[in-house]
Amino acid sequence: MIIVMETGVKEDQVQQVVDRLVKAGLGTHLSVGEFKTIIGAIGDEKIVRELALDALPFVEKVLPITKPFKLVSREFQEQSTSFNVGNCTIGADEVVVMAGPCAVESEEQLLESAEGVKAAGAQILRGGAFKPRTSPYSFQGLEEEGLKILARVREKTGLPIVTEVMDQHTVGVVAEYADIIQVGTRNMQNFYMLRELGKLDKPILLKRGLSATIEEWLMAAEYIASGGNRKVILCERGIRTFETATRNTLDLSAIPVVKHLTHLPVIVDPSHGTGNWRWVPSMSRAAVAAGADGLMVEVHPRPEEALCDGAQSLTVEKFEALTEDLDKVARVLGRRLKKVD
Amino acid sequence: MIIVMETGVKEDQVQQVVDRLVKAGLGTHLSVGEFKTIIGAIGDEKIVRELALDALPFVEKVLPITKPFKLVSREFQEQSTSFNVGNCTIGADEVVVMAGPCAVESEEQLLESAEGVKAAGAQILRGGAFKPRTSPYSFQGLEEEGLKILARVREKTGLPIVTEVMDQHTVGVVAEYADIIQVGTRNMQNFYMLRELGKLDKPILLKRGLSATIEEWLMAAEYIASGGNRKVILCERGIRTFETATRNTLDLSAIPVVKHLTHLPVIVDPSHGTGNWRWVPSMSRAAVAAGADGLMVEVHPRPEEALCDGAQSLTVEKFEALTEDLDKVARVLGRRLKKVD
Amino acid sequence: MIIVMETGVKEDQVQQVVDRLVKAGLGTHLSVGEFKTIIGAIGDEKIVRELALDALPFVEKVLPITKPFKLVSREFQEQSTSFNVGNCTIGADEVVVMAGPCAVESEEQLLESAEGVKAAGAQILRGGAFKPRTSPYSFQGLEEEGLKILARVREKTGLPIVTEVMDQHTVGVVAEYADIIQVGTRNMQNFYMLRELGKLDKPILLKRGLSATIEEWLMAAEYIASGGNRKVILCERGIRTFETATRNTLDLSAIPVVKHLTHLPVIVDPSHGTGNWRWVPSMSRAAVAAGADGLMVEVHPRPEEALCDGAQSLTVEKFEALTEDLDKVARVLGRRLKKVD
Amino acid sequence: MIIVMETGVKEDQVQQVVDRLVKAGLGTHLSVGEFKTIIGAIGDEKIVRELALDALPFVEKVLPITKPFKLVSREFQEQSTSFNVGNCTIGADEVVVMAGPCAVESEEQLLESAEGVKAAGAQILRGGAFKPRTSPYSFQGLEEEGLKILARVREKTGLPIVTEVMDQHTVGVVAEYADIIQVGTRNMQNFYMLRELGKLDKPILLKRGLSATIEEWLMAAEYIASGGNRKVILCERGIRTFETATRNTLDLSAIPVVKHLTHLPVIVDPSHGTGNWRWVPSMSRAAVAAGADGLMVEVHPRPEEALCDGAQSLTVEKFEALTEDLDKVARVLGRRLKKVD
Repeated sequence: MIIVMETGVKEDQVQQVVDRLVKAGLGTHLSVGEFKTIIGAIGDEKIVRELALDALPFVEKVLPITKPFKLVSREFQEQSTSFNVGNCTIGADEVVVMAGPCAVESEEQLLESAEGVKAAGAQILRGGAFKPRTSPYSFQGLEEEGLKILARVREKTGLPIVTEVMDQHTVGVVAEYADIIQVGTRNMQNFYMLRELGKLDKPILLKRGLSATIEEWLMAAEYIASGGNRKVILCERGIRTFETATRNTLDLSAIPVVKHLTHLPVIVDPSHGTGNWRWVPSMSRAAVAAGADGLMVEVHPRPEEALCDGAQSLTVEKFEALTEDLDKVARVLGRRLKKVD
Repeated sequence: MIIVMETGVKEDQVQQVVDRLVKAGLGTHLSVGEFKTIIGAIGDEKIVRELALDALPFVEKVLPITKPFKLVSREFQEQSTSFNVGNCTIGADEVVVMAGPCAVESEEQLLESAEGVKAAGAQILRGGAFKPRTSPYSFQGLEEEGLKILARVREKTGLPIVTEVMDQHTVGVVAEYADIIQVGTRNMQNFYMLRELGKLDKPILLKRGLSATIEEWLMAAEYIASGGNRKVILCERGIRTFETATRNTLDLSAIPVVKHLTHLPVIVDPSHGTGNWRWVPSMSRAAVAAGADGLMVEVHPRPEEALCDGAQSLTVEKFEALTEDLDKVARVLGRRLKKVD
Repeated sequence: MIIVMETGVKEDQVQQVVDRLVKAGLGTHLSVGEFKTIIGAIGDEKIVRELALDALPFVEKVLPITKPFKLVSREFQEQSTSFNVGNCTIGADEVVVMAGPCAVESEEQLLESAEGVKAAGAQILRGGAFKPRTSPYSFQGLEEEGLKILARVREKTGLPIVTEVMDQHTVGVVAEYADIIQVGTRNMQNFYMLRELGKLDKPILLKRGLSATIEEWLMAAEYIASGGNRKVILCERGIRTFETATRNTLDLSAIPVVKHLTHLPVIVDPSHGTGNWRWVPSMSRAAVAAGADGLMVEVHPRPEEALCDGAQSLTVEKFEALTEDLDKVARVLGRRLKKVD
Repeated sequence: MIIVMETGVKEDQVQQVVDRLVKAGLGTHLSVGEFKTIIGAIGDEKIVRELALDALPFVEKVLPITKPFKLVSREFQEQSTSFNVGNCTIGADEVVVMAGPCAVESEEQLLESAEGVKAAGAQILRGGAFKPRTSPYSFQGLEEEGLKILARVREKTGLPIVTEVMDQHTVGVVAEYADIIQVGTRNMQNFYMLRELGKLDKPILLKRGLSATIEEWLMAAEYIASGGNRKVILCERGIRTFETATRNTLDLSAIPVVKHLTHLPVIVDPSHGTGNWRWVPSMSRAAVAAGADGLMVEVHPRPEEALCDGAQSLTVEKFEALTEDLDKVARVLGRRLKKVD
């Protein structure tokens, strides 16, 4: 940590900062330049962060040197994390495609979707059981009944399921049914829930918050990892910007950045990322070309009848054409899409 | 709702849209122009929103005409909402100042803060008991013990208390202690919690989400109101933008916009809004000048020893100088700060 | 254009709007609903835009139905625009790679760069002669001498050149030397310059403004096209968002959106888009996978000695490895990178 | 400047950075910590900025300690800058109001506006002669004829005039007529023009760019100051964010930040800042309460007939009511609005 003092700082003010650092068990290093006096704090930056030194009127700013996350960092573990879900391995050579409808509407709808996406090459089935919506007047999901439908469709199709958990108190029930537990964009910083998820031995799909920086996103992953659960899949799903032509702005540059900073796998959700089925195929190809470890795509047999997010859902036919291209792009990077039998 | 069809749309495609609208019980009005065919849907827009018409490839876009919120709108209720908390009235001529430390650290710290802010002119005491933090390695709040301290300090000082609730399952316990229940920025769209809060007869302070549009914010208020609780206080606390000189960008123009769209009171949190005590006094004055019904300001006896957000906390002395100015600005608008005895 | 009136609007106020529309030569269509009165304006939307109807206190909002651009729209011309530059065709099956240093520093530096990028598979040489910089204390470019160096290096290598013009008064001199004239991000709305460029018969590479919406970007292209020059290449180069891990946020979803809205070719600049050479290869592959018609990449023989933007420049070796991958990704989409002999 | 090396950096790589710094005439200071090796560069940071050290693969990041601007900084000159325009002083106790129509449309329109705003309390008349517009099909301003009209109206009313310059080549002609030369938001980084303006002895009103950080804005002011012209007025006019309820997001927190960082006067344009006349009065009061040195407000005798920006223009009557309030708010801060006779 580098503490930059205000211009014209007095000696006793500098000493006051040094004293606080020493008292907290840190080493210090003073550098008095022509323009600026700066103090280097040597030791654990977490301690310095707690000292609120920037509350002092003669401190101009406090600059961190190390990253605030540790367990999830590439510096802590150089080798990429990978783990199995059903027959596929996430974070390895395979590009894993999760697909299915936004919401579980009925067993018929989900089964039809599941069979469609399986035939087209998806390895994992997605579907939401809890769907709290922006409007209190919209469809809110089938809740636990939806989880049961997911489990029955898994049995029939062999596809592992990924579904969202909405708060810490339902972590248990969702964990009972799901193969991967999804943390939605609005819950990325629901720290009580992250703490519960950290106690499980089950993969967590952690969506990036709508306006979360990459650093904040990795701090959320650190929460889960610090509880003991290292099976975290990061999912880029678009950030909020001034552009309104797309629902969100899909930040594909997050893929190489995250791959550089952390050993965790990262996938992309082009459906929420763009909000329009028209842009999903090109953004899916781009995500794989950028190095994503997988995709999560909304597919519905009849999008115009979907109770939720129909505008961004692909038909099964369009999805099938897409997976063929994705396999080819993956092979350019020495990877592939594995079809489930 | 106006449905704009893609250029070159065919007659049977137009008919398909008309049929779906009619089937949903809506009237339709067709307008075939030189460049565009548009369909006006007559009736409840909520129904049209659910139809996912923009999933159809020949529909270009769907334009809403009415607002998605109702109960909280100025069109539904022209007169401004006001209600009492302790001895003060929120949403009326008084400008109400809520002040206190970010987190409850101990009874001594809170009492000292409370006496300081009361003497300086605050009417309500703030303090957080639940403090889940970005880093899993930071101070996380005193939880229920913090609520008890708040209650004891209320008894000693007479100041009503506002404190944050973190999830739907603790709504009950927080409601037992708090005079106003605060919904934090990360929970603005925690719809399960909003639903619980809608069942109470207690004022809810609803902070704007970090990247929430004004419309989304009012929809969150609608959630609470639609449950039966009309005592909602909106709180602008800064939005996330590209600017890094301030922690967030305090959107003061939200005040007149919100006052125009809704009958609910709106206050401003300049502490989180700017993240730096240096900018708090000027932004507080500006908020009152813009027409805010109140303020929520972080004040700590010794900010540099605060366990949380010290950098944005005012000292009691600085806060006292500020309230004097605020009263004067309020009087320009025919309002005032009422001192509690 | 749909004019939505304020709730409670009076009959004579509606008439006032209708009269203004009729006087301007437009047809009108009135729809009085239960909640809202709306007026449809029939005819050229450009005329309605000029009427400032939203200045009237009883008009709530004015909603456009058609797009504000015409000549560049896919509705006006369905077939994609393509044209030749040197031996390559932009906007057709080839993916065209423009590469070279940020700034022309000397003939030796440019020649070394040009030979390197040519051998690696670039078809066009980039290099800036005019480099006004954020800091008045930085290197500002070789100006006309830089243009002459570019021309000499073109002669030696056979590579056509793309270089930036900074204002309308130097359009003439830049046009004398350049094969493609680049409009930088800060000049996207320099309308005087766009007007001059509209008079030329030379391809214009129009970079997206740092905070320009796609619609504003296409309006800038419309400026050039409306002057008579239809050879416009759109270039996505990153937009400004809250994320600081990358210099800008490269908006690759702009590619399919722009391809849908307009017939113009679109390329991507991953160097400015990310600001870090580490992320350039993956973003280049992603751009091609998303359907970009080309790339513009900064390459420097020794980036750490570059006078400008070294941190985002690839070495020649890294660039060579990249072009091989790009060709493979292009082939998935039925395209290819053509090597220049 | 602090150079943070990548984890695992080798000794000869550290030496390579040290050598480059020494060769550039800088002192160095090495600190090898448990986690990180960092190098402090001692001397002029401008030199370090030019070295492109972050292009080296073993350099993680380069952190600036000092600010990139100098002449305009409060550290360089502690006393606030103030200067006279006509009978008023900008940057002193007076709050200076500039008002008038967006565009000069005719002598009658401008004179009527000028007399109206003067009677209402404005000290300076605004009006645009050059109006390049987003759409090539809109009114583009009266150009030099507009400047002449401005001069004639100044003669008749005694009000000094502020008007915009669009490029470096018309700086001369605009300077001939204007009392204050305005740099528009799209030209904030038109460095060639800034350089020309730096040679004048005339106040420059420098609008903040639509997506410019405060630091970039002050660097633009530094351009002008480094040319010799210290009479720069900063003008906050709204930044681009995700919020669409207002045309831009007026960043009033920029006022105290800028007042802290620089000695230059700062004013606010609430008309462009909000894009809607409804929000202008409250944002004007807020700007003065936040400490702005003045305002720039669009006023038109009949906004619904304005050829430009009618929706954000106040009528003369509304403006008059506003100035009365502004004077009262100003007095809270020990300032006042001075009426011109």
